[in-house]
Amino acid sequence: MARFFIAPPLPEAEITLTGENARHARVLRLKPGEEIIVCDGQGSECRCADATRVGEQAVQLAVLARQASAAESAVRVSVYIAFPKADKLEHIIQKATELGAYEIVTFPSARCIARPEEKTLAKKLERWQKIAASAAEQSGRGRIPRVRVLRSYPEAVREAAGAELGLLFYERELSHTLRAALDERPYRSVSLLTGPEGGLEEAGVALAREAGMQICTLGRRILRCETAPLCALSAVLFHAGEF
Amino acid sequence: MARFFIAPPLPEAEITLTGENARHARVLRLKPGEEIIVCDGQGSECRCADATRVGEQAVQLAVLARQASAAESAVRVSVYIAFPKADKLEHIIQKATELGAYEIVTFPSARCIARPEEKTLAKKLERWQKIAASAAEQSGRGRIPRVRVLRSYPEAVREAAGAELGLLFYERELSHTLRAALDERPYRSVSLLTGPEGGLEEAGVALAREAGMQICTLGRRILRCETAPLCALSAVLFHAGEF
Repeated sequence: MARFFIAPPLPEAEITLTGENARHARVLRLKPGEEIIVCDGQGSECRCADATRVGEQAVQLAVLARQASAAESAVRVSVYIAFPKADKLEHIIQKATELGAYEIVTFPSARCIARPEEKTLAKKLERWQKIAASAAEQSGRGRIPRVRVLRSYPEAVREAAGAELGLLFYERELSHTLRAALDERPYRSVSLLTGPEGGLEEAGVALAREAGMQICTLGRRILRCETAPLCALSAVLFHAGEF
Repeated sequence: MARFFIAPPLPEAEITLTGENARHARVLRLKPGEEIIVCDGQGSECRCADATRVGEQAVQLAVLARQASAAESAVRVSVYIAFPKADKLEHIIQKATELGAYEIVTFPSARCIARPEEKTLAKKLERWQKIAASAAEQSGRGRIPRVRVLRSYPEAVREAAGAELGLLFYERELSHTLRAALDERPYRSVSLLTGPEGGLEEAGVALAREAGMQICTLGRRILRCETAPLCALSAVLFHAGEF
């Protein structure tokens, strides 16, 4: 079923799609009575039908039922990734959204090859948020993960440590497994922090440990900076009973 | 530690790196006494040292110790993917290798957008195998997963069903989870079969079921054809105790 995202709150009885959404609805050539889903991007959605064309610019829909999105995980997984090269970041945003991340947060760190530029940041954030929206739509999610940029590694650690389970993945940690961390106690919010192309520095890892994060291994194979967060995210959602 | 792959068998006392390997060793500017790993690409490796330059074309090494590669999973996971567009296939080969796949097998299926062309296949296989070799080296693996192309979907199903656990992921299967399939009994070999961009056909799924494969869900979010196999592979290796 086609999915459309509109800004919250969702109206009670009638929804009017405009702009990009209206164009998309026209491209789909919705049949009379055909049902679609309209989401607020925050986990609530409506089944709608009876698209009536209002001029060229808008499509009007009757709300049939309102529901919580069935495709959202009960566990909130925040993905914290050290700023990678642009194409890798876009890849991670798309895939983490499909897989079910709650939010995607990037930050500069000691060995980052690339850095977010202040000047172009607003424009880039807009682009990244669009990638997340498009992946959310395509994968049938009811929530568009927020993409955020933090100013520093310590800020990322402080935030990530605030989750019920704050986990940092480090290639030199060989024994403490993700499994051991997840099995310890039930969790509803998890943050997963992974390093840049050049790896995290020992001092940075120590900082995270002091902040209360657990330092974990993702196994004996060295994963690229764009592979590690998606591997960890898949495993956490699997462990949480999503599939 | 730098890793080099040579054709098996590994020599007992001395190893000579030639060609691409010798060039790579020179680029690394190995110091006298610096240790490196030489693998046979099939799970055995040697710690070597004392690189002596022999002309410009070869580097000679003394074997210090021979060992089974520590980075190989005890569980053999074969990844069967319906032939996707070229860049997606290359992406899957690279990532599945990093994550720890035993082999990567692709095949044409009913709704595939792209198809392997007979004429150019040998050349493409060589390219794909190089991608696997390079990802194996970079991730510290001791084995280069073999990349294979089968002629048809029924052939893929027949093969995949031969593993101790043959699993097919289908977006219309909503209840039988990967977790339920994996928890059933211990396993040493698993095959994971996923569909093309357009999804698998009901008849194809029925064929797999008749062949003894289990039809599983990867959750309530629709994953792209390049995301599903990597998500499933991550989850299986996590379940198998790899991390």
